[in-house]
Amino acid sequence: MASQKLGSQKLGSDKFVTLAHGGGGLASAALLKKYFLSAYGNTILNKLGDQAIVPVKGGRLAFTTDSYVIDPIFFPGGNIGSLAVHGTVNDLAMGGAVPRYLSVGFIIEEGFPLTDLEVIIQSMAQAARMSKVQIVTGDTKVVARGSADRIFINTSGIGEVPPGIDISPERVQPGDKIILSGSIGDHGIAVLTRREGFNFEVSVRSDSAPLHDLVKTMLAVEPGIRMMRDPTRGGLASALNEIAQLSQTGMVIEESAIPVLEEVKSVCEILGLDPLYIANEGKLAAFVPAGAAPKVLQVMQAHPLGRKSAVIGEVRAADPGIVEMKTSFLGSRIVPMQTGEQLPRIC
Amino acid sequence: MASQKLGSQKLGSDKFVTLAHGGGGLASAALLKKYFLSAYGNTILNKLGDQAIVPVKGGRLAFTTDSYVIDPIFFPGGNIGSLAVHGTVNDLAMGGAVPRYLSVGFIIEEGFPLTDLEVIIQSMAQAARMSKVQIVTGDTKVVARGSADRIFINTSGIGEVPPGIDISPERVQPGDKIILSGSIGDHGIAVLTRREGFNFEVSVRSDSAPLHDLVKTMLAVEPGIRMMRDPTRGGLASALNEIAQLSQTGMVIEESAIPVLEEVKSVCEILGLDPLYIANEGKLAAFVPAGAAPKVLQVMQAHPLGRKSAVIGEVRAADPGIVEMKTSFLGSRIVPMQTGEQLPRIC
Repeated sequence: MASQKLGSQKLGSDKFVTLAHGGGGLASAALLKKYFLSAYGNTILNKLGDQAIVPVKGGRLAFTTDSYVIDPIFFPGGNIGSLAVHGTVNDLAMGGAVPRYLSVGFIIEEGFPLTDLEVIIQSMAQAARMSKVQIVTGDTKVVARGSADRIFINTSGIGEVPPGIDISPERVQPGDKIILSGSIGDHGIAVLTRREGFNFEVSVRSDSAPLHDLVKTMLAVEPGIRMMRDPTRGGLASALNEIAQLSQTGMVIEESAIPVLEEVKSVCEILGLDPLYIANEGKLAAFVPAGAAPKVLQVMQAHPLGRKSAVIGEVRAADPGIVEMKTSFLGSRIVPMQTGEQLPRIC
Repeated sequence: MASQKLGSQKLGSDKFVTLAHGGGGLASAALLKKYFLSAYGNTILNKLGDQAIVPVKGGRLAFTTDSYVIDPIFFPGGNIGSLAVHGTVNDLAMGGAVPRYLSVGFIIEEGFPLTDLEVIIQSMAQAARMSKVQIVTGDTKVVARGSADRIFINTSGIGEVPPGIDISPERVQPGDKIILSGSIGDHGIAVLTRREGFNFEVSVRSDSAPLHDLVKTMLAVEPGIRMMRDPTRGGLASALNEIAQLSQTGMVIEESAIPVLEEVKSVCEILGLDPLYIANEGKLAAFVPAGAAPKVLQVMQAHPLGRKSAVIGEVRAADPGIVEMKTSFLGSRIVPMQTGEQLPRIC
């Protein structure tokens, strides 16, 4: 609930860009609809996937872009470079695509240490190798001191969508099971507690990881998976809400089924944060036909990046667009879309 | 020569990122080679094209990325949004590709006026329509006041390369004619003279424009065009030097054949700048087999974006990697690669 309180003052001014506009919640969605979709709108963009699926001669491509402005740039479990590669690989994988090619665009503040740049570049190279993608084109811009905060990285990516795969929110149907691939909130808490001014002694590491291989395993046993999303900015709550709205279905999830590390839980309690809204960078939520859920869950649990996978809920016809959570106290509550920006610059 | 002097102090520190590292000249090339290529290097990236040509099932794609950090963001002839679309469309077109899809990544400083954002977005939409590309995916990040200078935009793009087209620097051969599509320096001077502190009364407009249709016309009469490049950062001088080095050929150009607007010439003289190093955003240099040069020139001159096209020189076997310019006084001089950053944040 704390996230709602934090956010309530920041729904986004109607004159100026606010942090909430970049938070992946309600203000972001409003900005997107009012300005971007009205100007750029086309049948591909309108689908609002984390990746666009575009037709080309010979097949379908997935195409995606993300800018990374994370602070701090080095954190337990990764850095801005590995995160940028994983994030873009994951956006491609969530479309059912085999990630193939990445572009890298750097915006660097004058005076940035070359030794740090080298570490970041090497991390990107390693992450690309692990993700089986090639970095094929790039761009570097340098701006004067004070015109950017150290380093921002954009990665865009292309993947190939195999024939027969069709991952999209409209395919989500009542009865589908919702499977989550592991604990939530690790990334956000790992980054947050490394910021200046925080004195928590925590050992939480970011879950930043490439999910292409987990997805491949899942699609191999069930090509009919309806929808997948990696819950990054805005967390699991925002991801589920978006899909509920796009698919016009309702969702019921079980609080007790959602894995949260003890340490993440503690930090969230102290800070008044809700893990449902905290960013993840190596987790996915999949919407699977009920009959296929057991076999999909089995291969996920057998994969190193899905060991704690669990069915956390299901899709229903009632209350379209609404996500409801059964709580541990036999009650239930509505899980709304994130409003303000809970944690700026978390990715 | 002035550009060399300005740049000589800024060849790039070996400890910190400097403005020169983003200038598109020698320091940029050194950074690219030492850090990026050594880490990411693969046969596609190593070609160092403005776009990567990648194989996919069914054909070849061109893939490119650019971040735009231009200051000021509004200038005569365009704004950061139209520039970002044109720049990426042009990078695709320079690979002989038909531009198809764009991604857009915004990094916006908190407090940026939404009215300005709307103008930029509308300009991008219009530029995309004119360029016959679709904006299919995007991302928006907002950072706190002071963490970025107003707005940065990354555009990445995908184009389809028609069969039979092979544009690459290795194909440049002695005897090839070098055709330039119009006057140089317009963009850089239009932007520079709009910066705070400049009091020049000039009417120069940026040449920012999408070159895909001009390229289509050229390839229709001569599919065997060897190489094309739009001379942006670092100007015509840096573009020719890069191609001379990649192709291991020499080049001789005629100063008197290179169109420069009178106003651009005047501003350059006053400021001690060399138009050869000033950025362009709607011009291209093409390397064409000598026999095909007349017909290519003819269709270029008949195109609205190529009216002042001219053969400005040719490729030779002697002095590989060197660009020589015959000057108006019957002398000649070497035109080196740009060293420092002549004009930061020009694109």
